[in-house]
Amino acid sequence: MKQRAVVLVSGGMDSCVVAAIAASEYDPLFLHICYGQRTEKKERECFEKIAEYFGVKDKLIVDISYLKKIGGSSLIDTNLSVPKPDIGSTRIPSTYVPFRNAHLLAIATSLAEAKGIENIFIGVVAVDGSNYPDCRPEFIRAFAQAINEGTKPSTQIKIIAPLINLRKAEIVKKGIELNAPFHLTWSCYKNTEIACGDCDSCVLRWRAFKEAGTKDPIPYERIPE
Amino acid sequence: MKQRAVVLVSGGMDSCVVAAIAASEYDPLFLHICYGQRTEKKERECFEKIAEYFGVKDKLIVDISYLKKIGGSSLIDTNLSVPKPDIGSTRIPSTYVPFRNAHLLAIATSLAEAKGIENIFIGVVAVDGSNYPDCRPEFIRAFAQAINEGTKPSTQIKIIAPLINLRKAEIVKKGIELNAPFHLTWSCYKNTEIACGDCDSCVLRWRAFKEAGTKDPIPYERIPE
Repeated sequence: MKQRAVVLVSGGMDSCVVAAIAASEYDPLFLHICYGQRTEKKERECFEKIAEYFGVKDKLIVDISYLKKIGGSSLIDTNLSVPKPDIGSTRIPSTYVPFRNAHLLAIATSLAEAKGIENIFIGVVAVDGSNYPDCRPEFIRAFAQAINEGTKPSTQIKIIAPLINLRKAEIVKKGIELNAPFHLTWSCYKNTEIACGDCDSCVLRWRAFKEAGTKDPIPYERIPE
Repeated sequence: MKQRAVVLVSGGMDSCVVAAIAASEYDPLFLHICYGQRTEKKERECFEKIAEYFGVKDKLIVDISYLKKIGGSSLIDTNLSVPKPDIGSTRIPSTYVPFRNAHLLAIATSLAEAKGIENIFIGVVAVDGSNYPDCRPEFIRAFAQAINEGTKPSTQIKIIAPLINLRKAEIVKKGIELNAPFHLTWSCYKNTEIACGDCDSCVLRWRAFKEAGTKDPIPYERIPE
């Protein structure tokens, strides 16, 4: 019998590949977190379609839109505009949601501990991503230690972050290898009908497919540079 | 000018003492988290009264009752009964809410980072409490490390847990010294009109006041043993 795993699935391309990896080896419970981001509704629809694609019926959607009240990010504060790409900079972009991944991992951990599940998948990307501090291996390692100390002694939970050291193009290749349904995903930071092609996230995604030698199956408002 | 601090205030006796400590040295923002526990409404009323007592207008209430959906604790699952006291046991009681304090600290951290606040107060008690893993110094230390790694490099946040190594009677003494409004607090696990006097939490509280050589100002349904 396959081991169970809680899989954080946002609806974006990275977590779609993580879902494909997890579904190939584990019995997954898909966990989706809404946090009041601009594209909440779109991401949730993608989550549902990805779950359907993998035949996963065991799903939980958790709303932490209190993050919107807390603010501090252009991704959730509609008074701030989504910045132009600044890829390669070491600056933390304004789309950074303060400590967001700690909330995601805390929810996944409570769920895993309550259900006796020992694995948590998360699609953080450190190498080639948006330079968010809560995506780095040092954070994941520190949080794993917090899980170890803050749960019952009998609870054994492992964080699996299979993309953390992959470049975006390698993630695309991995996804293609596993038939990940990239056509069902949403990465754009803006809440437009089709992906803007302009924001950090669109640019990173477009380049990744190009570098992987393939074409992104989703349409763009404007072909990213 | 006083430094600012996010202070987690549940409405119980421990966080009331923490609030008194924080209010004496910092400019506090009181943060209250509802998580679908049986006594949610009572605790929230106590939180409001404590904030009023200290003249704190800067308050945030965050609802994480998704923990109720996740379950795994008799404190939030009304299908489970609150257990009889088993104080002194090394067993984790069924009132343990899986990894709850990680959620509290993650919210406090996001709030602190978004507002540029460098201190978080939390009233965890390790020595003489209910034996919850997420109240131990090892967990607090590990979580502090996760904060350090998972927030912006320019963000400096310290977790201050002034009660962590105090015995319950010492907490009572500390509170009396600082005029903490114990009469405004609620500790009982049950959602009764007055404190049951029967649950772990009532028994621990009652004994603490007795040992501190004073009388608990709140009424009890039944005098605890």
